[in-house]
Amino acid sequence: MAFPRPKPTTMETLAMERADPPFNVRKLAIKMHGSERALLLKEKFMAEIARHPAFKLSDIHDLSKEELRERTMEKFSSMVYFVTTESLEVFGLRMQLISMADPSFWTRFGVAYGLFLGALRGGATPNQFSYWIDKGVLGLNGVIGCFAMTELAHGSNVAGLETTATFDRETDEFIIHTPHLGATKWWIGGAASTATHAAVFAQMIIDGKKHGVKTFVTQLRDTKTFQLLPGITIGDIGKKMGRDGIDNGYIQFTYVRVPRAHMLMKHTQVSREGAVTEPLLAQLTYGALLAGRTTMVTDSSTTAKKALTIAIRYAAVRRQFSTGKNEVETQLLDYPIHQRRLIPLVAQAVAIGFTGLRLTKMYEDMTQALDTMDPSDPNLGATLDKLKETHSTSAGLKAFCTWACLDTIDKCRQSCGGHGYSAYSNFPGMYADFAVQCTWEGDNTILSLQAGRSLVSAWGDAMKGKKLVSGVAFLNDRSILTAKSDSSLSLTDIQRAWHCVAANVIRKAAEEYFSLMKDGKTKEEAMEACSQSRFVAAKVHVIGYIFGMFREAVEESGKGPETEVLERVCKLYGLWQIEEQQGYFLKYGYYTPEQIDKVQIAVSALCADVRTVAVPLVDSFALSDHIVNSPLGKYDGSVYESYFAQVQAANPTPKVHPYFERLIRPLLERQNEEMQDPGSEMGLDEELGEFAAERKEAAKGKLGKVRREEE
Amino acid sequence: MAFPRPKPTTMETLAMERADPPFNVRKLAIKMHGSERALLLKEKFMAEIARHPAFKLSDIHDLSKEELRERTMEKFSSMVYFVTTESLEVFGLRMQLISMADPSFWTRFGVAYGLFLGALRGGATPNQFSYWIDKGVLGLNGVIGCFAMTELAHGSNVAGLETTATFDRETDEFIIHTPHLGATKWWIGGAASTATHAAVFAQMIIDGKKHGVKTFVTQLRDTKTFQLLPGITIGDIGKKMGRDGIDNGYIQFTYVRVPRAHMLMKHTQVSREGAVTEPLLAQLTYGALLAGRTTMVTDSSTTAKKALTIAIRYAAVRRQFSTGKNEVETQLLDYPIHQRRLIPLVAQAVAIGFTGLRLTKMYEDMTQALDTMDPSDPNLGATLDKLKETHSTSAGLKAFCTWACLDTIDKCRQSCGGHGYSAYSNFPGMYADFAVQCTWEGDNTILSLQAGRSLVSAWGDAMKGKKLVSGVAFLNDRSILTAKSDSSLSLTDIQRAWHCVAANVIRKAAEEYFSLMKDGKTKEEAMEACSQSRFVAAKVHVIGYIFGMFREAVEESGKGPETEVLERVCKLYGLWQIEEQQGYFLKYGYYTPEQIDKVQIAVSALCADVRTVAVPLVDSFALSDHIVNSPLGKYDGSVYESYFAQVQAANPTPKVHPYFERLIRPLLERQNEEMQDPGSEMGLDEELGEFAAERKEAAKGKLGKVRREEE
Repeated sequence: MAFPRPKPTTMETLAMERADPPFNVRKLAIKMHGSERALLLKEKFMAEIARHPAFKLSDIHDLSKEELRERTMEKFSSMVYFVTTESLEVFGLRMQLISMADPSFWTRFGVAYGLFLGALRGGATPNQFSYWIDKGVLGLNGVIGCFAMTELAHGSNVAGLETTATFDRETDEFIIHTPHLGATKWWIGGAASTATHAAVFAQMIIDGKKHGVKTFVTQLRDTKTFQLLPGITIGDIGKKMGRDGIDNGYIQFTYVRVPRAHMLMKHTQVSREGAVTEPLLAQLTYGALLAGRTTMVTDSSTTAKKALTIAIRYAAVRRQFSTGKNEVETQLLDYPIHQRRLIPLVAQAVAIGFTGLRLTKMYEDMTQALDTMDPSDPNLGATLDKLKETHSTSAGLKAFCTWACLDTIDKCRQSCGGHGYSAYSNFPGMYADFAVQCTWEGDNTILSLQAGRSLVSAWGDAMKGKKLVSGVAFLNDRSILTAKSDSSLSLTDIQRAWHCVAANVIRKAAEEYFSLMKDGKTKEEAMEACSQSRFVAAKVHVIGYIFGMFREAVEESGKGPETEVLERVCKLYGLWQIEEQQGYFLKYGYYTPEQIDKVQIAVSALCADVRTVAVPLVDSFALSDHIVNSPLGKYDGSVYESYFAQVQAANPTPKVHPYFERLIRPLLERQNEEMQDPGSEMGLDEELGEFAAERKEAAKGKLGKVRREEE
Repeated sequence: MAFPRPKPTTMETLAMERADPPFNVRKLAIKMHGSERALLLKEKFMAEIARHPAFKLSDIHDLSKEELRERTMEKFSSMVYFVTTESLEVFGLRMQLISMADPSFWTRFGVAYGLFLGALRGGATPNQFSYWIDKGVLGLNGVIGCFAMTELAHGSNVAGLETTATFDRETDEFIIHTPHLGATKWWIGGAASTATHAAVFAQMIIDGKKHGVKTFVTQLRDTKTFQLLPGITIGDIGKKMGRDGIDNGYIQFTYVRVPRAHMLMKHTQVSREGAVTEPLLAQLTYGALLAGRTTMVTDSSTTAKKALTIAIRYAAVRRQFSTGKNEVETQLLDYPIHQRRLIPLVAQAVAIGFTGLRLTKMYEDMTQALDTMDPSDPNLGATLDKLKETHSTSAGLKAFCTWACLDTIDKCRQSCGGHGYSAYSNFPGMYADFAVQCTWEGDNTILSLQAGRSLVSAWGDAMKGKKLVSGVAFLNDRSILTAKSDSSLSLTDIQRAWHCVAANVIRKAAEEYFSLMKDGKTKEEAMEACSQSRFVAAKVHVIGYIFGMFREAVEESGKGPETEVLERVCKLYGLWQIEEQQGYFLKYGYYTPEQIDKVQIAVSALCADVRTVAVPLVDSFALSDHIVNSPLGKYDGSVYESYFAQVQAANPTPKVHPYFERLIRPLLERQNEEMQDPGSEMGLDEELGEFAAERKEAAKGKLGKVRREEE
């Protein structure tokens, strides 16, 4: 017999959630994507890859590392076509979408196309660049590059790399060599089984003198046979937390000779005679780093939106316990605590999304301005200042946005209960793939400290009366330090709140630093000693900065119901973060304890308010079922049916039990006589006595060791 | 040529870190393990499994799910031997160690031995229990059980389960049936390929009347052939985030008949005629839940200690950047920010460890007291009160300790930079395996709310003048609400600080609740509406409770250098958590802003202090290299050599490139003529125009949809 089922089906429930939204979902989606064109392009890309066999996603959870690697390589040819036919803008948007569908491929392709080509763009002379273009770098026909920077014992500290490139004047060659194990090139994406060439970072040595780290294009494999060239040792570094579609490898060079002309000479030049010409000015690398960080801010938003699309839809259809007299169980999303778990994260993802859009625009505007500006332009200095400021803020943004996204993925997983732990929910894969974003292109903690270092300088500048650029301009107004709330909890009040606490925590870090300097510490020592305060300064500033970007976007968004919902989401983001970081607001007196209680009430009220539009809101993230790739987040709400179908498809029952005869039957047919009397533990005390005696000696010295099985 | 290497090797560095610790490592280890016997037993178990082929760990990162499943099953026979010959105490300690070496096995074995047997112990009459013992439940010879509780659409809400057990009076049988997809038993560990029987939770129906959920032992497979019995459908639910050694499955029953005697009848009884006798009193389930939670608190500590052993040893040997004039690069552990990243987590792991020890002891004492107490004993009420209080605190402890451990694993991973992302670091596997602890045996958020609910009641009791039991006794003293720091930052001051803020946040939740009740809400509505405040109350109370347990352990630990280091670690834990939760201390005025600044300074100073003994401190966690299973955490410091050797062993170069001919050669040999002119994007605008037109209609209604690839 079946129970009567008075409750609506999951599909009916989701349809009801969409019944009458107070805003137009598509119009909101356009705002979130920056333009209708960007949204249309994304929809086009989604439609294309949903039908492309290499982009099949439903089976990826059960592929082996080897299968994933091969599947990932299958995508190369289709993308090479687009990369050679599309504009940078269109291809950039395409890759942004691809990064959500397959982060492994995005990276593996990005290594060859972004990092290797980027190294050439940034480091090669025009002649060298043409040479490599002719060799086929652009279309990957002839050269597939990888980027051989990090070593086993050196990651971030590029200047400390130990691979050597020694000039041999006789043959006009550099000899690339790995002097010891720690100098093995490590983590090199594409090295294990894709690349023919590498941009190798190595210490240049001429006549026994070290000239610092330079880049040498070094061929790894024969392009016809794919055999390793003499002196090249390459291995696969194997299984990772995620992104197993990338063939990260290690490379060891044993006296490998490359022509002098393969050293990239845009900056430092080496003549036929071995004379070194250093560049007059240190190169400006802001641009390249900033572009990478901007991408990661955007990626943090889109990935978080993907996780939240799953968690919100699931919370809308999942019912648990009936409250009061209701026959029908309550939707998870109707529990205040469940709203608290998810809705602020939605607000955060939206906030970071707008930050990404504006950061991208700022970056494009600044580089365009710099490209076209005359060196005598009176605005040049200001534009450079702004670039510099945006660059250092972007370090903090990269850190806190990637952390926020990683945290969101796991909170979404937990919010789906046990099913979130199933690989098919897609949370485990998303978490594993995304986790590296907190580490690469600069460990998040270190980047935060860099951002904090700039804030300390900015404070010093402000004290000297220098007018600061937009992002930190609030430091020019000393009265912000002692500002108080007007109790309105309006967007303006919230903005002032963030400026107030940011100014205070920046001042705290700066004062620690300057006082340490006064005590005779070196600059580096002082910076290290105030690192905790620098970290806090960066954290608080970045959160306030994100709020500010979101608020500006809302203010520029015109009137209408879409703007109204964004305004509430923006307010929720600002107030929720105030609640999270309440200590600073109380410490610096912007809010009183009573006002903080009001903030908590307002956050709960906004959560309940945004909950009413939560499903259409995540619909506006515009992610197809194929991209979301989780039955729990199906657009139509057919959660259990889709989940069951996927589990069945991925796990056919084997015809023969793989180990019944070997392992289970002997257990089941074991005779009782074999068992001893439970609890007798014959001999245990003697054994332990021996152990104890052995240990007694060791325990006498201070180094009293614990017993290890190797002994 | 090799560079001169003035720096000490990683092995030398670690030896120097151990050179002259101010305490005896073994004596400290004994304190951390509760007794010398417990430590010796652990060392014995570690020695045994390090040599046992089924417990090989170095290769697990590269095993497929199928291989892991089989490897896990191989461990059964050795453990069955121990479970039938060792005392509960010794076997319990053995399993605690095993859970660190192989969480999958621990769970898979625990399902058969703990959950299934536990269901019999808790639910069977003495006669029924003997019957199943005779069948071979204890030695798994004859019966291998699984625990079929959760369903696809019902997790925590046991009362809402939808599998039916309908009494057939004619045949004296129950008919077990799965009425619809959502009622499919789901996540059932051991069901997919191990179990012969299941303890099935189903709605008992007699004469059309529902009698609630009862347990029915149902045979799933023939014990000779391992074929599924008629009416049983079982499938594998496949890949999970972690613990893939467990064969979780789904089960659907299609009118499966079991004898009436297979319903467990210790509580509810059903007669031959179908008459139902309900138990007079609701059963006391505190004990069983409390035991599980205590285990998870301990597991949170041991797992965090494992992660920290890796991270601390690696931070000691990893060098990066040279500060000042040093030739030798600085050890990561010497950077103040790196100390900040790891040392407080060490303190937390130690704090949770002592909490686990004391909780276990309390639990044992209480159950022993209840077992031996006469019903007329005047202390019975107090003991029951304490059990009840410990039970509800344990809900919060389970939540915040498992969260803390999961967070610790990922922070340790990040602290190791890129290498933490390698599977061989063991962090990815540890994270994936541990993550489920935040979900099973009660979702952490829900458990926190349960703990918060008890705190609200406790506040109500305190207001009525009732004397509360130890854990919440501080609520009896109203003056604690307005206490102020004596500025000493002593352990006593810290303890009062936690009592003060805990009392205040508990009062806040309680007052919200009582005011909602006054406004006419039902009890459930009021509890839901104050859930955020209940959550905060639980969080703050639990942290203070852990601190209190640690402090008590330190106070009872006697004099000596080991106690001295524990005292500092305890202080660090308390102050660091105050810094983390500073908002509450400022809000309720226990500390002034200036005192909070002093807390920050004290935390940094304690981090620097504990850093000097960090390596011997983690040595006292007494984890063998085999258990730690990470080259980054090798006891002897041979980090890079071990890592390289493991990567090489796990990733032999294939003789033939798996896809060069199919995928890479065509790329490399592609002709340039095939390429179009980059940037022309012929036809793109037309395509987008079509898209846009299609969308225009949809955008008119409020449900303006985004384009989905399915359309």
